[in-house]
Amino acid sequence: MAKQIKTAIQPARDEDYPEWYQQVIKASDLAEKSPVRGCMVIKPWGYAIWENITQTLDAMFKETGVKNAYFPLFIPLSFLEKEAEHVEGFAKECAVVTHHRLEQGENGNLLPAGKLTEPLVIRPTSETIIGDSFSKWIKSYRDLPILINQWANVVRWEMRTRTFLRTSEFLWQEGHTAHATKEEAVSRTKMMLDVYSKFAEDYMAIPVIKGEKSASERFPGAVDTLCIEAMMHDRKALQAGTSHFLGQNFAKASGIRFQSDKEQEEYAWTTSWGVSTRLIGGLIMCHGDDDGIVLPPKIASSQIVLLPIIRKDADRQNIMEYCETLARELKEITFAGRKISVETDDRDIGGARGWEWIKKGIPIRAEIGPRDMAENSVFMARRDRPHREKTSVKRDKFVSDITGILNEIQNNLFNQALSFRKDNTVTIDDKGDFYQFFTPQNKEKPEIHGGFAMSHWCGSEKCEEKIKEDLMVTIRCIPFDNNENEKGKCICCGNDSSKRVVYAKSY
Amino acid sequence: MAKQIKTAIQPARDEDYPEWYQQVIKASDLAEKSPVRGCMVIKPWGYAIWENITQTLDAMFKETGVKNAYFPLFIPLSFLEKEAEHVEGFAKECAVVTHHRLEQGENGNLLPAGKLTEPLVIRPTSETIIGDSFSKWIKSYRDLPILINQWANVVRWEMRTRTFLRTSEFLWQEGHTAHATKEEAVSRTKMMLDVYSKFAEDYMAIPVIKGEKSASERFPGAVDTLCIEAMMHDRKALQAGTSHFLGQNFAKASGIRFQSDKEQEEYAWTTSWGVSTRLIGGLIMCHGDDDGIVLPPKIASSQIVLLPIIRKDADRQNIMEYCETLARELKEITFAGRKISVETDDRDIGGARGWEWIKKGIPIRAEIGPRDMAENSVFMARRDRPHREKTSVKRDKFVSDITGILNEIQNNLFNQALSFRKDNTVTIDDKGDFYQFFTPQNKEKPEIHGGFAMSHWCGSEKCEEKIKEDLMVTIRCIPFDNNENEKGKCICCGNDSSKRVVYAKSY
Repeated sequence: MAKQIKTAIQPARDEDYPEWYQQVIKASDLAEKSPVRGCMVIKPWGYAIWENITQTLDAMFKETGVKNAYFPLFIPLSFLEKEAEHVEGFAKECAVVTHHRLEQGENGNLLPAGKLTEPLVIRPTSETIIGDSFSKWIKSYRDLPILINQWANVVRWEMRTRTFLRTSEFLWQEGHTAHATKEEAVSRTKMMLDVYSKFAEDYMAIPVIKGEKSASERFPGAVDTLCIEAMMHDRKALQAGTSHFLGQNFAKASGIRFQSDKEQEEYAWTTSWGVSTRLIGGLIMCHGDDDGIVLPPKIASSQIVLLPIIRKDADRQNIMEYCETLARELKEITFAGRKISVETDDRDIGGARGWEWIKKGIPIRAEIGPRDMAENSVFMARRDRPHREKTSVKRDKFVSDITGILNEIQNNLFNQALSFRKDNTVTIDDKGDFYQFFTPQNKEKPEIHGGFAMSHWCGSEKCEEKIKEDLMVTIRCIPFDNNENEKGKCICCGNDSSKRVVYAKSY
Repeated sequence: MAKQIKTAIQPARDEDYPEWYQQVIKASDLAEKSPVRGCMVIKPWGYAIWENITQTLDAMFKETGVKNAYFPLFIPLSFLEKEAEHVEGFAKECAVVTHHRLEQGENGNLLPAGKLTEPLVIRPTSETIIGDSFSKWIKSYRDLPILINQWANVVRWEMRTRTFLRTSEFLWQEGHTAHATKEEAVSRTKMMLDVYSKFAEDYMAIPVIKGEKSASERFPGAVDTLCIEAMMHDRKALQAGTSHFLGQNFAKASGIRFQSDKEQEEYAWTTSWGVSTRLIGGLIMCHGDDDGIVLPPKIASSQIVLLPIIRKDADRQNIMEYCETLARELKEITFAGRKISVETDDRDIGGARGWEWIKKGIPIRAEIGPRDMAENSVFMARRDRPHREKTSVKRDKFVSDITGILNEIQNNLFNQALSFRKDNTVTIDDKGDFYQFFTPQNKEKPEIHGGFAMSHWCGSEKCEEKIKEDLMVTIRCIPFDNNENEKGKCICCGNDSSKRVVYAKSY
């Protein structure tokens, strides 16, 4: 038997993936559970990732003409009820505000008081409240398109929660647009999916498949839901972003009407699209390894940590000065649209220090001891390489090469993830093979099986439902790059099919 | 009688200040009332100001070592109860979540269902929920200080609301720090007040008085509340930011303990500090005039609007190209840490177009017609000058001077506001004069009177209360730059006093 190599995170991914996930979050200091059921505390190291995500996406949205605004946290119950499918989709997970005061009860305890005449729902999403504003803002075709985005917190009262992936409160952005024509709205829906896909691949280093949801997986009230789907390291799919074409459903519900250029009163065509702190969960599960998270340099909380090695007190001042000068120089360099962020950690805690930064996933660690200083160099380690692999680099070369090194790490992470997805994506045409693909072969490691199956689907909800019941596998999307001419037989019923879809277990 | 000059905003400030305020917000398209009681919709032109405020302050906070994080929207009732004064201060205005589901009632209406075992309060402020995290994060003096900030929405159920100034939901930042010593916490409280004061004066162009609140005006649970106070154009005071030294009150309530360097268990010393979207209300009332808002260039939603004047269709292409090239060049220029933002408005709506931008308060309007183009110039108007005053400026000079012009406008706004405050700040030592100062002399314009009265106060809550009852005037702050050696007599009771304070009506 091979010797068990101890990893920084226990258990390793292959031993118990869900537990590995929780332990990585803890070890990397990204977030923690809060005393409020299902709500998380996003700690500074995790929040910094979110800040980079928001800044990058915000700029990308604005380039397409989108402007930010802010709408109320509360949605009157009557608003939510305006769109039947919509309210049905969210009724089971709404936090409801019923009182606006606290009063001392008979036993001295505080009790809710001041009952509201109409209960308020905390926004699970804002189509209805934003729709109300749109109905006032839009009078004529000249007011269109309206392109709005909101960065906000939303609440969906989930019964089973998991940090970042599914929490009762989460942070997100929600874009809402209104257009004069169907074509324009459809094209905006696709445009925003392209923004998400570009962001996921270029910044998060997460390869994604773009496609369309089947009817049963659509956003409640949408005509069409587009999505990007990514493969996590346990081979499950994560929906990383969605863009919805809402047709005229919400325009009719909220009365978003306009005078057309032909002087006719028409309903607007609307879209909505969003990504959330869930992306951070995807980041962890796409790039993390058995030593912790691995942060893609372009959205890393910080890119570089300097680790001064001070063996004698007499060396301290010189080494610290060397580090400070180096840090100052590095911080002047722009990478991925932002100044490089540099940490200096001079805590005297031995080997634990280096491991802390490995677990935190910082792209580059640079040790600086008396010898490195004497040689005018740094001792560099990269998070995308084995932790023991360290290289002595001349200080000036380190500075001048730094954006190149960061880009190389970024690309390596993307390519690794892409290879992994390719290795675990299988074209399956036989029903038996399909069932076997999604059935755990090793009872001790039930997590390790399956992947993405590219199989034919006849289009019937019945087949979709059957596969879901039998295997807990769903259609993640009908990919855009489908070979539309390829005919085949539905993997479930054997009837004619004109398209392959992505089947997978999912988060 | 002088001829009545019609202004863009009706009524003018001197006619009906509160109504002027609402009309300015409407005319400038900053925000609107929402269908949810007391909640506002912040429209793109208003939200862009908030984005600039947050970006600027965020960078200033980070320079002092503060890091961002995010804590739950919900606070368990039992947490709020931990600090007695705190809960008393907020109990009357808490939105309370009591259910987590909606269910169809007998008549088909949706009703709240799934009653929570413990009601959750929507954060009015986060001392107690963040204190809980701090109690887990802090073990030893080595973990201190902890310097955290959160950008978030909070809810205080106000009975009388006013856009930006007092809304049930508002956006803010709340900083929370924990320290090993009292001195360090006190010094952090002052440091953050200095940040606010610098930001208000340098970016918002709002002169502020720094000082300490009297006991009755303190934050519920604080040992000491520091504040910055600004004078609005109706001579009332606006509290523009507060920084609280919380002593060990919240540390005791939340159990924030640490092992000191002398190996003793001690309670930490904490601070909290915040500014909110209320600042935008202050901006409107400090700089706005009878033609609309006037935005200080450093935090303006946009600095420049180009207004092509196209009289013949044949000119359109050339003029638009001229504008586009100019806009591109201007957008490359950095001003106050950000790229200059430029709008181009080619709507053919006559004089209404220019007035719209005046009402929106954009610092610079530049008209570009065929003659301007032929002369390679622009026809520039500045929002800090009369609207008819326009100057022809050579295009290249316009570009090369732009940051200088913007800085000049910025300084003008600050100096105007400072003069106005000086003109309306009076040292008063006679009780009769004091009462007259705060009593409207003209019944038709009750808003126009008073200002800041620098008068002596003996320190008793009774005198403070009496003045408040008689005149609705409160002690805004005990200013730091008080002449401490100046002895005097309390303006209310005539007893000995060692300090002048700022008395004013306030928002």
